[in-house]
Amino acid sequence: MAISFKTIQTNMSMEHVQIGFMPPADRIIAENLAQLVAFGQTKGFDFVVSPLNSPEYERVLFKDHGPQSLELATWRAGLEAFRPEDLVVRTADHADYIVGTLPDWQEFDSKDAKVRLHSELALRQQFNWISHLGLGGVMLPYPSSTEPLSNYGRVLTGSLAMLAYTTCWFRVPCMDDTLEQMVDEDMQGMKSWERWNSIRNMAGPESKLGVALELAGSLPSDAVLDRWFAEPVKVIILPEDIFLTNNMGYPVLSKRHQQVVRSFIKHKPTFIISSSQLPKLVMNEFSDDALERGLSSPYADYVRYLHRTQDAPGVIDQFAVGYQDYLQAPLQPLQDNLESSTYATFEKDPIKYQQYELAVERALLDRPIPTEGEDITVIMVVGAGRGPLVNCSLRAAERAKRNVRVYAVEKNPNAFVTIQNMKASLWGDRVTIVFADMRTWKAPEKADILVSELLGSFGDNELSPECLDGAQKFLKPDGISIPANYTAFVAPMASNKLHADVSAFKDLAHMETSYVVMFKAISLLAQPKPIWVFEHPNRQDIPLDKDPLSNHHNIRTGSIEFVSEKGGMLHGVAGYFESVLYKDVMLSINPSTHSPGMFSWFPIFFPVRTPVYIPPNSTVVLDFWRLTDTRKVWYEWRVSCRFDGVEIHASPLHNVGGRSSSIGLF
Amino acid sequence: MAISFKTIQTNMSMEHVQIGFMPPADRIIAENLAQLVAFGQTKGFDFVVSPLNSPEYERVLFKDHGPQSLELATWRAGLEAFRPEDLVVRTADHADYIVGTLPDWQEFDSKDAKVRLHSELALRQQFNWISHLGLGGVMLPYPSSTEPLSNYGRVLTGSLAMLAYTTCWFRVPCMDDTLEQMVDEDMQGMKSWERWNSIRNMAGPESKLGVALELAGSLPSDAVLDRWFAEPVKVIILPEDIFLTNNMGYPVLSKRHQQVVRSFIKHKPTFIISSSQLPKLVMNEFSDDALERGLSSPYADYVRYLHRTQDAPGVIDQFAVGYQDYLQAPLQPLQDNLESSTYATFEKDPIKYQQYELAVERALLDRPIPTEGEDITVIMVVGAGRGPLVNCSLRAAERAKRNVRVYAVEKNPNAFVTIQNMKASLWGDRVTIVFADMRTWKAPEKADILVSELLGSFGDNELSPECLDGAQKFLKPDGISIPANYTAFVAPMASNKLHADVSAFKDLAHMETSYVVMFKAISLLAQPKPIWVFEHPNRQDIPLDKDPLSNHHNIRTGSIEFVSEKGGMLHGVAGYFESVLYKDVMLSINPSTHSPGMFSWFPIFFPVRTPVYIPPNSTVVLDFWRLTDTRKVWYEWRVSCRFDGVEIHASPLHNVGGRSSSIGLF
Repeated sequence: MAISFKTIQTNMSMEHVQIGFMPPADRIIAENLAQLVAFGQTKGFDFVVSPLNSPEYERVLFKDHGPQSLELATWRAGLEAFRPEDLVVRTADHADYIVGTLPDWQEFDSKDAKVRLHSELALRQQFNWISHLGLGGVMLPYPSSTEPLSNYGRVLTGSLAMLAYTTCWFRVPCMDDTLEQMVDEDMQGMKSWERWNSIRNMAGPESKLGVALELAGSLPSDAVLDRWFAEPVKVIILPEDIFLTNNMGYPVLSKRHQQVVRSFIKHKPTFIISSSQLPKLVMNEFSDDALERGLSSPYADYVRYLHRTQDAPGVIDQFAVGYQDYLQAPLQPLQDNLESSTYATFEKDPIKYQQYELAVERALLDRPIPTEGEDITVIMVVGAGRGPLVNCSLRAAERAKRNVRVYAVEKNPNAFVTIQNMKASLWGDRVTIVFADMRTWKAPEKADILVSELLGSFGDNELSPECLDGAQKFLKPDGISIPANYTAFVAPMASNKLHADVSAFKDLAHMETSYVVMFKAISLLAQPKPIWVFEHPNRQDIPLDKDPLSNHHNIRTGSIEFVSEKGGMLHGVAGYFESVLYKDVMLSINPSTHSPGMFSWFPIFFPVRTPVYIPPNSTVVLDFWRLTDTRKVWYEWRVSCRFDGVEIHASPLHNVGGRSSSIGLF
Repeated sequence: MAISFKTIQTNMSMEHVQIGFMPPADRIIAENLAQLVAFGQTKGFDFVVSPLNSPEYERVLFKDHGPQSLELATWRAGLEAFRPEDLVVRTADHADYIVGTLPDWQEFDSKDAKVRLHSELALRQQFNWISHLGLGGVMLPYPSSTEPLSNYGRVLTGSLAMLAYTTCWFRVPCMDDTLEQMVDEDMQGMKSWERWNSIRNMAGPESKLGVALELAGSLPSDAVLDRWFAEPVKVIILPEDIFLTNNMGYPVLSKRHQQVVRSFIKHKPTFIISSSQLPKLVMNEFSDDALERGLSSPYADYVRYLHRTQDAPGVIDQFAVGYQDYLQAPLQPLQDNLESSTYATFEKDPIKYQQYELAVERALLDRPIPTEGEDITVIMVVGAGRGPLVNCSLRAAERAKRNVRVYAVEKNPNAFVTIQNMKASLWGDRVTIVFADMRTWKAPEKADILVSELLGSFGDNELSPECLDGAQKFLKPDGISIPANYTAFVAPMASNKLHADVSAFKDLAHMETSYVVMFKAISLLAQPKPIWVFEHPNRQDIPLDKDPLSNHHNIRTGSIEFVSEKGGMLHGVAGYFESVLYKDVMLSINPSTHSPGMFSWFPIFFPVRTPVYIPPNSTVVLDFWRLTDTRKVWYEWRVSCRFDGVEIHASPLHNVGGRSSSIGLF
C-alpha cells in the first residue's frame, strides 16, 4: 500500500471555466476599450485582452535620435513617465478585467543594441504600469525573429519579480512557422517548445512564467503536444477561424481539435477566444450577425460545453481530486504503524481485493486435498491489518468449497484490536489471530498458502521481499505465496511542477528522496521498462526452514536504455510495479497494463538534481540500485544520455549510501 | 589593479619530490614484503607499492558454491575475517611506507551478479583493513573490461568515506588500449579520460579520489594530455621500460617525455617508478647489475634531476607562490579604500609602469606645443594612489623634453597623505595634488592627457568606464586618455579544483560570483575570444563638458561561440583583458599576448552552477552581460552547448539582477 491520505483537502466541486476574448490588437484604441469591456461582459467573458500601448509608444525607440539626444537620454534615465497617447490602457477602471499585451516592435534580441536596450527599458516601464494598475494579467509576445532568445530570456528572468500580483503568460503558437525551409507540423511544434524551453531554462525552476498555447487549424502529433502536459500551460488560445460551422450555423471544433482541447481541460487552463475582426458591437455599430446579436458568445458556449461534457471522472480521478501532483513520502510500515483511516481507505479499493480473492480461490483449487490427517488447507495472512485479506480468503474458500484454517498475523497493536473484534463477531474458530512480526513469529504449523499485501508503488519499496523472506520458513516446501512475484518498472519523465516542488525545499536530501505522486502535469519521455523482479517463496537463496544470514540476495541492479524519439527535459524517473498474485491473476499500476479502477497505488517519482535536456532520438540510460545493510534498504540512481553515440550528460550518483532516504528494516 | 595580497602565506622553499617504487604485483608475497621495504629504503624511495592480497583471496568469489552454501552466506554476512593466507600486507609494520593495490579479479561491472556483489563486499573488507593498518595509500585498478563503469563508480563513491586518513588513487593509463579497433593515441588518450570522468562525475565534486596517471612509451598529443591539468592528478607512474639509456648507461627520458613530465612537475605530483621485474636484491640474491648495486635508484635520481632543473620560476611564478588556484573576490576600489600594502605590491610591477611611462611619452610627443599662452602640457592622473603614475608622467616629460603641469587626483584619504609627502619631498610645484573623487571634481583647467590605472582583470570590472566617463569632462576636446581602450576576453574552461572550492560554500551566491585567481590546475576548452570593448574618451555617448544622465551606454552584451575540438568538462569561464594605453603601447593578460613579466593582474573566473560535459567538436556558447542600475554594475552569464547542430545543454542565467554579486558605484 502506497498512499497516505491524511492532510489532504479534497474538493469535488466542478469549477467554472475561465474564458477571455481577444480582438485584433491593432483595432483596439483607448477610445473603444470601454466598449470592448462592455462587450466582453455582456457576452459572458471573464476577461478581455487588449494591447497595453498605442502604436505611438514606438517613439521610445528614438529611431532618428543620436546617442546624445537630450530627449533620448532623459527617457533612458527614467526621467519621463508614459504620455497619455502612449497608452491604450490609461486608467485602473476594469483593470482586473483586462489582460494586457505588449507591442511587437519590442525586439529583445535585435542586432541593434539601441533596439535591445530600449525594448528592455520599455518593458520595465510597462511592467511598472501594469502592476500599478493591477491588471488581471499580461501576455508576452512570441518572438517574430528566429534569433536565439538569450537576451529576451535574460530580460524576462530579471523583470518578472516586478509583477507582484499580475500573472504573466508567454504566448506560444503550437507550431512555429518562422522556420525557413518547409518542414512538417511536428518539426514546427518541436521548434515552438524548444523556444519556450530556452526561455524557461534561463528563468530557472522557481519562475512564475506560464504558457499561453495557441492552437491552429492544423496541429502537431499527440507525441509533440504531449510535451506541453509537463509545462505550465495556463492558457489555451482558440482562434475563431479554427472553428467549423455545424448545420445549425454554430461554431464547433473538429474531432481532433476536440480531443486535444479535452486533453488540456484536465489541466484546468483558462481559454482565450481570439478573433481576427473587431465585433461591430464594440464599434457601437448595429450587427445583423446572429452570432453577435446572441446573448452569449457561441465560441465560449462551445468551450463550456466541452468542459461540461468531459468524460465523467473515473473512480480513480474522483478519488484522487486533491492528490494530483502532490508529493508524498512513501509509507514505512515496518517503522510506523498505519492509522485506521489509512487502512479504511485502502479497504475501499474495488479491484485489489477482488483480485486477491480470485488468486486465493485459484490457489486453493490447485492444492491437492490432504489425503491423511484432517481435510483442511492452511492459509496464513501475514500483515493482516484490519482483516480484508482474511475476508478474501474465507470467501475464496467458500467459492472453492475447501475447508481452511486461516491465521491472521499482524504486528500493529492498534489494527490487532480490530481483528480481535472481527474474530469475536465474525470469523470465530475459522481464524486464529496472532500478534507478532511475521519475521520472528514461531508458527505452530506450516502453511499451504501465504497471503500478503506488502507491495509499494515500486513493488519492493515497502520491504515486501525482506518480510516474506522471514515468513517463508513457515510455508510448506510446495506452498504457494500470494503474490508470487512483482516487477519494478521505470521511465524517464518530464515534469516542471514536480521538480520545482522538490527544488523548493532547497536541500540535497529532498532531491535524493522518492515520492508517491498521482501524476498529472507530466510527460513520459519513453515507455516504462522493467528493471528487476522479486519472486516468492525464494527457495534459491534461502535454505528451507531457515532465516537468511544476510540480506544481500535482495540487492538489485538495473541499467536500462530508452530511445526517446521526441526528447524533452528530463526532471526525474517515474516508477511503477506489476505483480503476479497467482498464475494469470495480476495487479498492475504500469500504465500499459494498469488494473482498471484500482486506486491503492499511485506511481513513485525519483527526482534528478539537475534537469537534463534530452535531444530527440537520443538514448537515456537509467541506472538503479536497490541496496541494503543490516539496518535499512535504500535506492541509489543516476541518469545519463547518449546522443549520436556520445555520452552528453551523466548525473552524479543520487542518495549515496542512503544518505538522504532509506527504508528502515526495524 | 586586481589582486589583494593580504591573508596569504607565501612559501618559497623548494620541496622534496616524493618517489615510490612499484615491482610487478605477482612477484610480491607476504614473505618478501619486508625485503621490498628494505630495498625501497636503501634505494632512497619514499614508499613502495605492494598488492594488499595474495591470489588465494580470490576464493571469496565462491565460484563453485551455490547461493545456499553456508561458507558463502557466512562470508557475505561479514561474519568471517581475513585469513592470514588472504593477505600480503598482514601487519602494520611499515604501513605508512606501503601503498596497497587491489587484485584484478574484482570486477565491479561484471555481468555476473555474484562477481559484482562479492567484488564490492571484498572492497569493503579491504578498505576496512587498509584504514585499520593505516596504509600510506591505496591505488585502485583501471578496469580491464570495456563495460560501462556505473557500478564501479557507485561502489567507490559509497566506499571512499571508509578511508579516514589513507589517500586513494585511481590508476589510469595515459592511453586506453582496450578499444577493439585500432585507433590512434589521441583517441586512446580521450578514452582514458572519459572513463575517469564517468567515475568522477558519479563521485561528485566533493570526492577525495585522485588520479595516478601512467605514462607509456608513446604518448597522446599535448591537447589531450592538457585535460589532465584540470584533474586531480596526484601521481605520475613512470614504467622503467619507457626510459632510454644514455651513453653513460644511465636511464633518461626522451625529449617529449621530459617535456611532459616537466609540465606535470608544476602540479607537484608524487612519482612511482614501476618495474617489470623484481630486483634481485629483494630476492636476497647477489646482483651484478651496476644499477642495482648503486646506492640510490638511477630512475629516482633522474626524476629528482628533472625536478631540480625545472625552468627557474619566472617573476610571476616566484611572486605568485601561494596564490595558485586561490579564489579572491575582485577589489571594489570605489567602495573600499585600498591598503598601503596593496599599493606597495602593485607599484613593484616591473612592466606595467614602464608601459605607462612609454605611453605618456608617446602621447606628449604627439601633442602640438601650445602656440599661445604658456608652453605647457597638462597631465591629469586620476586615481593617483600613492603616485606611481605621477612619477611615470614626470619621467616621460623629461624624456619627451616637454613642460608639463601634473594634477594628481585621489579620493583615498590614506593614500593622499602619501602624495602630500611626495609633493613636499619630491614633486614640488610641478604637481598639484587634489583630494577628490574624479567624477565630482571641479577642475580649474582642462587636461591634454588623462592618465588612469583603473583596470580590473576583466578590464571594466573595477568600473574604469564609469570613472573615466565622469573624468572626461575636464579633458580637452582633442585630449588623450591613457588607456585609450580595453577589451574583455572569455574562454570556456575546466577546473575541478576551482569548481569544488566554490561548491564548498554550498550556496548559490558563491556560484554567481566572479573570482580573481592565478590559474594552475585548469584547462582551457578553447582559446579566449574578445566579447566587448570600452573606448576613452567616450565622445559618442557623452556630451562635451557634461556628465551622462544615465549609465546605460556602459551596458554590454556578448554572445560568443567556441568550437571545442577536444571537449572536456566545463566548470566555468576564464576572463582576461587587453588594453591599448596609447597607439601600440599595450597591457595584456590574455595568454596569447600577455605582457611578459607583468604580475598586477591574475585572470578572473566565472563559475557555472553545474559542470557541463562538452563533447569533442561541439560548440560552446557563452552569453555575457554587463548591466547597470543607478547604484551598481554587475555581470550576468550563461553557457550552452551545441552538438551536431542540436542544443544539448543550456545553463540557467547566473546572477540575475546582480542578486549574488555586483560592484557598487559609490
